[in-house]
Amino acid sequence: MEDATVPDHEWITDIGGESFAHVYRVDRLLHDARSPYQRVRVIENADFGRMLILDEAVQTTERDDFIYHELLGHVPLCTHPAPKRALVIGGGDGGLLREVLRQPLEHATMVELDRAVVDATLRFIPSVPGNVYDDPRARLLIQDGIVFVRETAERFDVAMVDSTDPSGPSLGLFSTEFYGNMARVLGRAGVLAVQSGSPLYQQDLVRMVRQNMTPHFRFVRTYLGTVPTYPGVLWTFTIGSQARDPVSLTEDEIAARLRGVATRYYTPAGHARLFDLPPFLRADLGLD
Amino acid sequence: MEDATVPDHEWITDIGGESFAHVYRVDRLLHDARSPYQRVRVIENADFGRMLILDEAVQTTERDDFIYHELLGHVPLCTHPAPKRALVIGGGDGGLLREVLRQPLEHATMVELDRAVVDATLRFIPSVPGNVYDDPRARLLIQDGIVFVRETAERFDVAMVDSTDPSGPSLGLFSTEFYGNMARVLGRAGVLAVQSGSPLYQQDLVRMVRQNMTPHFRFVRTYLGTVPTYPGVLWTFTIGSQARDPVSLTEDEIAARLRGVATRYYTPAGHARLFDLPPFLRADLGLD
Repeated sequence: MEDATVPDHEWITDIGGESFAHVYRVDRLLHDARSPYQRVRVIENADFGRMLILDEAVQTTERDDFIYHELLGHVPLCTHPAPKRALVIGGGDGGLLREVLRQPLEHATMVELDRAVVDATLRFIPSVPGNVYDDPRARLLIQDGIVFVRETAERFDVAMVDSTDPSGPSLGLFSTEFYGNMARVLGRAGVLAVQSGSPLYQQDLVRMVRQNMTPHFRFVRTYLGTVPTYPGVLWTFTIGSQARDPVSLTEDEIAARLRGVATRYYTPAGHARLFDLPPFLRADLGLD
Repeated sequence: MEDATVPDHEWITDIGGESFAHVYRVDRLLHDARSPYQRVRVIENADFGRMLILDEAVQTTERDDFIYHELLGHVPLCTHPAPKRALVIGGGDGGLLREVLRQPLEHATMVELDRAVVDATLRFIPSVPGNVYDDPRARLLIQDGIVFVRETAERFDVAMVDSTDPSGPSLGLFSTEFYGNMARVLGRAGVLAVQSGSPLYQQDLVRMVRQNMTPHFRFVRTYLGTVPTYPGVLWTFTIGSQARDPVSLTEDEIAARLRGVATRYYTPAGHARLFDLPPFLRADLGLD
């Protein structure tokens, strides 16, 4: 399994906080390129299979991508009373769009800034996007999601933001202006879900997302998942909803919406508990 | 904060699986000694505070020790109808005994093999044991827990095993003989809880513990927690119980038992869900 380019095993170091990190052995380096926006690598690792790394941060792996993508996709879709049109901002690996289109929507648009991410994942980790771009309900736009949301005249029912951490081009995806534009695009029953960082070492980010979303959505809630390949594993998502409080959905309601969708992490019984953070995190994040 | 012994920052590498690890920067090396059983280090780290490391594995940190110790202590104690006497095997840092004695027991015995772990924690991470050894209900024995459980004529209501991973002296703590001796010591309403490893990269261990406990306890259940400083964060515990199925405890029952015990991770509402593992782990561990 040795690769000529990696004689003695390199390791990928994905830093969380200031003084801890997850590290992954590079069993094979499959792809290493620079796009206009970031370094794009695909490696193979014995524990997690093929892994997509943007700059130094693990984005997606063959083994655990479903956890993050189910949580970011199905939670807001199930919160909307009858979603027909979905909007994915970012999500270049295609895994989120794949989960979104497992629900019986009429249409989904994905707006990704960096074509290099789409192409690298399609070529080297094809199980993540699957054949989602061949789905006649799907449309892929390569452009800046911030501009798209500000300028589009289209309307969507549910949107998700699958972004890198806030820096450079993704910074504006965490602003209150962006969430305000999203609220306009989503209309009166709209639902928006975003990844909002680690509750262990990005607590300011978690709080900022809630604060920036609050003026624009009737219900704003933080929910929690476990993503083994994100530093610290515990990970937050924030959802804004205009019509229905996501916490109030019943197990039966979720089960009806997920009928025929065999999820591996998100379950009808597990929905409400995603929002019930342990007391130490509620205290740390000021949720009490 | 630089220490003369750590000129350029060392890092502690705690390996999970074969190809990933958590790494922690050594901001200060407070203690580094070899006991007859293991290397015992205490470091200071900006994200997790003071950390106890045995050989290369993080055992306990100031910031997150309560998660592991609440789960291993309160879950079995709440499962027993009326516990009076508790037995802790291992747990040299004292954090588990601390949690156990927050419940209104009459007595708790802790049997730890390595006095060096007790002493290092008392001296360098005193917030973890607190003043638990001064509690008149507590007894500390420095001896091999396997021998103690095999030979003692005493009886306990609830026992917990807070061990290192199975190798060397701790291997016997995972055997069916040991669990059989425990069942004898615990009697007709006895409850035993043990740490049983990572569901991501020690799946054989999780299964082995269940298998080895099954002949000796009426109900055997796996439950799941998130320990940020264990590799992969997701962590399993296994509980054996003679009288009551731990899954069947109600929120009200747990609340009554935890009255006056301000837990930071384990909650009455969260009890049942600890046992409801996500589908991918149920499948990986053969729980379906």
